[in-house]
Amino acid sequence: METNRSIEIQHQKETIRIETFSDGIFCIAVTLLSLEIGVEVSHNETNAGLIQALLGKWPICLAYVISFINVLLAWMGHHGLFKNLRNTDNFVMIANGLLLMLIALIPFPTKTLGLFLQTEALKTAVVLYTGYFVLISLAFKLLWHAASRNPNLLIHGIAKEEIKRTTKNENVGLICNSVIMAIAFVSPWTALILSFVMWAYWLFLA
Amino acid sequence: METNRSIEIQHQKETIRIETFSDGIFCIAVTLLSLEIGVEVSHNETNAGLIQALLGKWPICLAYVISFINVLLAWMGHHGLFKNLRNTDNFVMIANGLLLMLIALIPFPTKTLGLFLQTEALKTAVVLYTGYFVLISLAFKLLWHAASRNPNLLIHGIAKEEIKRTTKNENVGLICNSVIMAIAFVSPWTALILSFVMWAYWLFLA
Amino acid sequence: METNRSIEIQHQKETIRIETFSDGIFCIAVTLLSLEIGVEVSHNETNAGLIQALLGKWPICLAYVISFINVLLAWMGHHGLFKNLRNTDNFVMIANGLLLMLIALIPFPTKTLGLFLQTEALKTAVVLYTGYFVLISLAFKLLWHAASRNPNLLIHGIAKEEIKRTTKNENVGLICNSVIMAIAFVSPWTALILSFVMWAYWLFLA
Amino acid sequence: METNRSIEIQHQKETIRIETFSDGIFCIAVTLLSLEIGVEVSHNETNAGLIQALLGKWPICLAYVISFINVLLAWMGHHGLFKNLRNTDNFVMIANGLLLMLIALIPFPTKTLGLFLQTEALKTAVVLYTGYFVLISLAFKLLWHAASRNPNLLIHGIAKEEIKRTTKNENVGLICNSVIMAIAFVSPWTALILSFVMWAYWLFLA
Repeated sequence: METNRSIEIQHQKETIRIETFSDGIFCIAVTLLSLEIGVEVSHNETNAGLIQALLGKWPICLAYVISFINVLLAWMGHHGLFKNLRNTDNFVMIANGLLLMLIALIPFPTKTLGLFLQTEALKTAVVLYTGYFVLISLAFKLLWHAASRNPNLLIHGIAKEEIKRTTKNENVGLICNSVIMAIAFVSPWTALILSFVMWAYWLFLA
Repeated sequence: METNRSIEIQHQKETIRIETFSDGIFCIAVTLLSLEIGVEVSHNETNAGLIQALLGKWPICLAYVISFINVLLAWMGHHGLFKNLRNTDNFVMIANGLLLMLIALIPFPTKTLGLFLQTEALKTAVVLYTGYFVLISLAFKLLWHAASRNPNLLIHGIAKEEIKRTTKNENVGLICNSVIMAIAFVSPWTALILSFVMWAYWLFLA
Repeated sequence: METNRSIEIQHQKETIRIETFSDGIFCIAVTLLSLEIGVEVSHNETNAGLIQALLGKWPICLAYVISFINVLLAWMGHHGLFKNLRNTDNFVMIANGLLLMLIALIPFPTKTLGLFLQTEALKTAVVLYTGYFVLISLAFKLLWHAASRNPNLLIHGIAKEEIKRTTKNENVGLICNSVIMAIAFVSPWTALILSFVMWAYWLFLA
Repeated sequence: METNRSIEIQHQKETIRIETFSDGIFCIAVTLLSLEIGVEVSHNETNAGLIQALLGKWPICLAYVISFINVLLAWMGHHGLFKNLRNTDNFVMIANGLLLMLIALIPFPTKTLGLFLQTEALKTAVVLYTGYFVLISLAFKLLWHAASRNPNLLIHGIAKEEIKRTTKNENVGLICNSVIMAIAFVSPWTALILSFVMWAYWLFLA
């Protein structure tokens, strides 16, 4: 009995440790976004020149804001998912690793979006960006599938409704992101605006 | 009763977790500041050349020092604010996310300040920099408004004086930063010096 | 007796602190990998141009994925090793510092691999990359040697089988990485593919 | 009595929080060092060319290793100092902030050292580097002065010998770094070698 409890505590510690590591990656990824923004000094060493250079930075700033919100939402989703776990296995570890790999690389589609927002390659950049969040939704679904397939991994006494609700949330996220990506092929700007306002949806429903 | 207490502990854990995540962003943002400073190797491969190149780095070093102090003060302010919280809601999460978004981007106005301090665009750079801290003050005010509007979010037995004191602190911070920004339009250097010495004010009053 | 216990707790706290610091370095190193990936805006401001530029990024993306997996595995190995420790001494600190120094520099061989994968210098890049993981295996072996040489550093009641198992794991890791490096001299691509699939081996055996 | 204890626990929590934040900065600063190392792809797309380019990286690698060791030692020193604290005041916060500001900027002298090690500006780079660690020693002395000046900030029952020992350690560190800097003016390479082997001294005496 005592041993059981000590094993239980050990499992919970492991789960917390994995979540802390994941939190670190979310935290660093979101802060590294800022490294992509900067004004070059050449040719605009006057007040008017610098103002114009700063105003010209709006695409990368917009990309930064959208990505920052999306990473914060993903972090909240990740935490909501881990709150239901009391243990992990190799499948969960792989799925979580896959998700973190995608999160850590978010600065890449963000930077690409910011750089090409005002060029003719707008559509490609937005499809890449929105498609990237479809991949993240898929990784979330895989992680939740890995966790919820085995009752031993979930906390005791978790309500079936809670499991269903999380499954539904993952599905809604995946569908939303897929629809936004499909829209990006037709109208990149509509897709971007939807990306931007989706956080409102999540906050008011969650 | 027991359930109430366990819910209470759960809420506190959530609040601590959000604060830890916020701490991480403060910590990374302040360290990333250092990435903007570096000496190019070209054309100064002699002792005299390198000394001159290093001395020419004083504007970016000054910007680094001012920003480092300001981020540390913001971190202390953030912690002082969270010490009064025992729970969070969506409004607090949004306001905190907004604040973190601004904190994570501090390397951007800092780098701009350092690059343009010795050019004719000095005024624009200083207005951008000081204006950025007005935005941060506003985000702090919003966060405190979100937290203090609902007594359920504050720790039990918090004195009304403590709430008033924090509200006053936020207002003083906002007014100071706004005045400094206004001065920047007239005299950029005066504004910068005030930015630099404001920490003394905070430390001796707090 | 009471004093003994308090010293014991103090030692465990120190060990946890060192592990937390190490975790931070693993976490940052793996996220910094993402900084090396980016598409330049020049000359490809059309959809077709950007698509081609993105597709041309596959070598650096492949290098990113391999390194991400390897760092996650190293993190799991590091944790598995520290789980057996209840105290540290200077030798363990030096060995752990050496390991962290190598982990923090993983972005360097990763970037080199990504940049030269499609050039004639492929063999050199792959030998550097695989050789780097031989060094990491050696640092792991040194760390485990430092920890297991002194029974006072290990947790009480650790089974001899556990010690043997960890020793065996370190040896298998070193041999695998050495063999992969040797193969890299003959066939760089075979070595890379083996690097990529080794995680499957670890996950199914561990 | 109960209130006293709860205030005591509150103070200890604050102290731990400041130490955790400081740890984060040490951790990120040491990992950011790795960003300065990289091989450019141009002109060496053959095996022989890449090998030569990699071998030519030894100065920046040497600088990386020396700085990594020095930051790890500073981290251990910082922890040894904070172990004696049970509370902090504004003076301690300022001194700690000053130290962290210097730690976060270590990539700057490290990069400069690596870039100019093989140029005629060697002496300037080594004086900058060794002088930077004199500054860090001074910040450590200031931090310890701030902490030890007020018995209320130190843990109860701390032995006078422990205080004296820490004071002596800070002094020895300052003198060592000052002597190494003085030597750098005469013989940069001797100073660098001393910088490199000083960790052995610390580890065998501590």
